[in-house]
Amino acid sequence: MEKIIITGAGLAGSLLAIMMAKRGFEVAVYERRPDMRKVDISAGRSINLALSDRGIAALQKVGLDEVILSKAIPMFGRLIHPISGELDLQPYSGRSNDYINSISRGELNKILLNAAESYPNLQLRFNVRCEGMDLETGTVRFVDELTHQHFSETADVTLAADGANSAIRNEMYHHAPKLRFTFSQNYLKHGYKELYIPPNKNGGFRMDQNALHIWPRKSYMLIALPNTDGSFTATLFMAFDGEDSFEKLDNPEAITSFFEKEFPDVIPHIPDLVENFQNHPASALATIKCYPWQVNGKALLIGDAAHAVVPFYGQGMNCAFEDCLILDKLIEELGPDWNLVLNTYQMMRKADTDAIGELAEENYYEMRDHVANPVYQKKKDLDLILEQNFENFDSKYSMVTFREDLPYSVAMRKGRAQDKLLTEICQQVNNIHSLDLHAVLEQVIQLHLKG
Amino acid sequence: MEKIIITGAGLAGSLLAIMMAKRGFEVAVYERRPDMRKVDISAGRSINLALSDRGIAALQKVGLDEVILSKAIPMFGRLIHPISGELDLQPYSGRSNDYINSISRGELNKILLNAAESYPNLQLRFNVRCEGMDLETGTVRFVDELTHQHFSETADVTLAADGANSAIRNEMYHHAPKLRFTFSQNYLKHGYKELYIPPNKNGGFRMDQNALHIWPRKSYMLIALPNTDGSFTATLFMAFDGEDSFEKLDNPEAITSFFEKEFPDVIPHIPDLVENFQNHPASALATIKCYPWQVNGKALLIGDAAHAVVPFYGQGMNCAFEDCLILDKLIEELGPDWNLVLNTYQMMRKADTDAIGELAEENYYEMRDHVANPVYQKKKDLDLILEQNFENFDSKYSMVTFREDLPYSVAMRKGRAQDKLLTEICQQVNNIHSLDLHAVLEQVIQLHLKG
Repeated sequence: MEKIIITGAGLAGSLLAIMMAKRGFEVAVYERRPDMRKVDISAGRSINLALSDRGIAALQKVGLDEVILSKAIPMFGRLIHPISGELDLQPYSGRSNDYINSISRGELNKILLNAAESYPNLQLRFNVRCEGMDLETGTVRFVDELTHQHFSETADVTLAADGANSAIRNEMYHHAPKLRFTFSQNYLKHGYKELYIPPNKNGGFRMDQNALHIWPRKSYMLIALPNTDGSFTATLFMAFDGEDSFEKLDNPEAITSFFEKEFPDVIPHIPDLVENFQNHPASALATIKCYPWQVNGKALLIGDAAHAVVPFYGQGMNCAFEDCLILDKLIEELGPDWNLVLNTYQMMRKADTDAIGELAEENYYEMRDHVANPVYQKKKDLDLILEQNFENFDSKYSMVTFREDLPYSVAMRKGRAQDKLLTEICQQVNNIHSLDLHAVLEQVIQLHLKG
Repeated sequence: MEKIIITGAGLAGSLLAIMMAKRGFEVAVYERRPDMRKVDISAGRSINLALSDRGIAALQKVGLDEVILSKAIPMFGRLIHPISGELDLQPYSGRSNDYINSISRGELNKILLNAAESYPNLQLRFNVRCEGMDLETGTVRFVDELTHQHFSETADVTLAADGANSAIRNEMYHHAPKLRFTFSQNYLKHGYKELYIPPNKNGGFRMDQNALHIWPRKSYMLIALPNTDGSFTATLFMAFDGEDSFEKLDNPEAITSFFEKEFPDVIPHIPDLVENFQNHPASALATIKCYPWQVNGKALLIGDAAHAVVPFYGQGMNCAFEDCLILDKLIEELGPDWNLVLNTYQMMRKADTDAIGELAEENYYEMRDHVANPVYQKKKDLDLILEQNFENFDSKYSMVTFREDLPYSVAMRKGRAQDKLLTEICQQVNNIHSLDLHAVLEQVIQLHLKG
């Protein structure tokens, strides 16, 4: 039987392990960190993610979609918090069955690890760090973080799901001239800091739990996603230095007065704001792209190892899960001829992960800025009305998020062209309710037929 | 006295060492390779480069311009070799004092090393590889390649001129999240292979020695630069794989028939073509960009370590020399407050090295393709006529190559706008000699005044 090494037992690694084990391969999974089911490695921080249709489709393939969705909280739209004035709910879609789901990263990962462990042909080892591999022979080098012993293992193929700092990608990077390994990492000027909003006294939610809360403030923004225990995880996105930056918020008075001025409605929800702020690090955000992803049919980068994206489209995990689903389908179709499978995979998939990388960077500007802009708002309303009235219309956001049948690159191309057209239409009318919706839809259909 | 470590004694490293020694700093230079003045490390391959005004200005600063130019061969233009028909000389400029100079990389490097060694406050050590550094303390780690002994050394500042595979850049790369180290390496699909054209029987040149020879063939191209001994170094640029690629030229018949068909006039000049072709490797070409270049006032990337470019504008060395000149001037103006000097340097210089990186990639397509295009040719002729008639007109090529007073980014911006205007003018007339040159010049001047 073919043997597969998977580096990383994070979200992509554990889902991929299940898929490979289901196919009957001998699967060995190595994870650098301790087993999160036994050791609390999140250090008390609760991190949540938005699970949507592409991710769900991949979980469905291994029969885990229902159990996981039962642990998630539906979010039907963005709830915008202006500095003063009323909250404004911007639904994600004009259709009530299209929504995203707030899920705890830890809980999701534990469900996947438990499912993986149920396969007798799958071995999970924790506290083992991958140190690189021989890309010719397929021998992978490891070190046991507890005993400090080095060892190596050889498989038919190694699937590297070891994240944005992938050791296997670093191996390819160190052989760059030979592999002509094109690589880029682009750090944003902005970073993020997580803040904790506890449940209220009765264990309930302090704000609407069925929305993704946003406080857009142009050069920075705060967001919050609900957790099942009644808490929210809030995240402040802001420049590291310069005017309005983390650097400037270096004392209790500055932090307090910044929140009082910019996010007054949040202050009562974060009882220990200053401590919370000072104890949590400001972390960097980068987009990583590279190519090729596979070498000699022996190693493949997958998930964040191949294409880390910034979090502003809520697609990092969904994209990584979709990677797994596509790879699994190709193995089904082509059999384990690894060079053929991995080559086909990377050629099929590269344009799509480039697209979501670009969309995610773009959405940062949209989220912190345009959501407050009137023409943008009119166009967004038109998107909703069209979705409410026509089954065959999807906004760009819906194509990216809810249409798992459309590759990201197609969603990006169609979505951009459509946004341009609808924005032009909105600029020409005072009230979008005066528009002939059938005529607008016809223009959209013609646009997509052309291109 | 301030102590400076320079990693790399290549072209940039040795010029920079001279500049720093002249300022009286204590300078320690470490080079991975053996001393090229004692050991022939080029393995018989003669490599030459095009030295032009930006590089010459930097050499002038240390009084070495004249001795070095005396070893160079002026090249006044591109001599185009079509498959059949007459050779076509395309001058680099309409002014006879603007030309580029073919110089041996090895000979140039040796002159710089000899000059460096004459300073008592400068130490040169060969066969010592840099393994990285502590970016907080400034301690640099080395290994002696002969004794395999590891040692470290601390200086006030380390200037990393250790080339496209810089160990100091790798150190920054490994601390990427903390430094928010944005980095990209972009490999071209095409690589290059060098071929040797020996002198003729009398020790003379087989072709015109005062030109850069080009055989443009759209999807690939051959070029040749003269050496002082009567030989030429030819370079074939071609895709690694696919149709018309190095991969396809894997046997004597394929090589011979390819050259017979594509470069028939070269065949008599390369007596041992097949051996020549098979013994020389096909090497990769990449553009490398990164930022920041400096950390904590302790380390600075300079030359190829900071910004490797593809060779198609003949500016890699000239740009690296200009880096040294600009840094040296900033030290003169600001004194050795390293954090201030290095920060000012990187902020001033980044846009310019990005510009030459972009221009060099762009020029690849121009050299192998457009040089054979009629509108391009007409525009090129108009450039020449304008340069011949007006002292205050420079083509884009001239601005990049001969105007060391214009930063690369300005040359790119002005040059592109001007090329667009002149191309439009050429498309509208059958014969450029019917144009009112003063009116054309006036349009160009107005264009530059606007932007």
